[in-house]
Amino acid sequence: MAEQDCIFCKIVDKELPSDIVYEDDEILAFKDVNPVAPIHILIIPKKHIPTLTDMGQEDAELIGRIHLAAGKIAESLGVYDRGFRLVNNCKDEGGQVVYHLHFHFLAGKKFKGVG
Amino acid sequence: MAEQDCIFCKIVDKELPSDIVYEDDEILAFKDVNPVAPIHILIIPKKHIPTLTDMGQEDAELIGRIHLAAGKIAESLGVYDRGFRLVNNCKDEGGQVVYHLHFHFLAGKKFKGVG
Repeated sequence: MAEQDCIFCKIVDKELPSDIVYEDDEILAFKDVNPVAPIHILIIPKKHIPTLTDMGQEDAELIGRIHLAAGKIAESLGVYDRGFRLVNNCKDEGGQVVYHLHFHFLAGKKFKGVG
Repeated sequence: MAEQDCIFCKIVDKELPSDIVYEDDEILAFKDVNPVAPIHILIIPKKHIPTLTDMGQEDAELIGRIHLAAGKIAESLGVYDRGFRLVNNCKDEGGQVVYHLHFHFLAGKKFKGVG
């Protein structure tokens, strides 16, 4: 399922290194190399889905499980009670840079405003 | 399933008015009354789930379907190709204000940074 030249597929396949904080059969989470918050994790499906609107109905449970993983990550990083922000940037105006679906998990400070 | 004194449950039950942009059996989406972007929609499960970490495994598909709904909303509002940002603020540090799980759908301008 890996897409040639996709940097996140290479991370999934361990062709590129990453600082992994969570992994299961379908999901990988690793530290963002350019953090914008004290805790900045990227949570991705191992399956190559370019953007959020490329998900199919068959992916609904997978996307839901990414959100369950966010809770587990919050617990393991000690921010379960304090909370976090989860962001998906979809396509150009959303601010998407890498076209392999990913959710930014941001924590470790108090976020103001909406997003 | 409605929680007493939950403003979003009242919106789901149509006890309070809202400007609805999408609705199905499980999901409601309506315009945020204090928009921070040209398009600012709140997408919520009709079921009262206080925060993201309160979702159970049985909610995974529902949460995934919320993301499918985001794609439908993007299409109906004319921003499917331009893109959008989807944000969940979980608990205090995440910036959550209303404790009924909701995703901010932000669009209509180019977002910079992560979230």
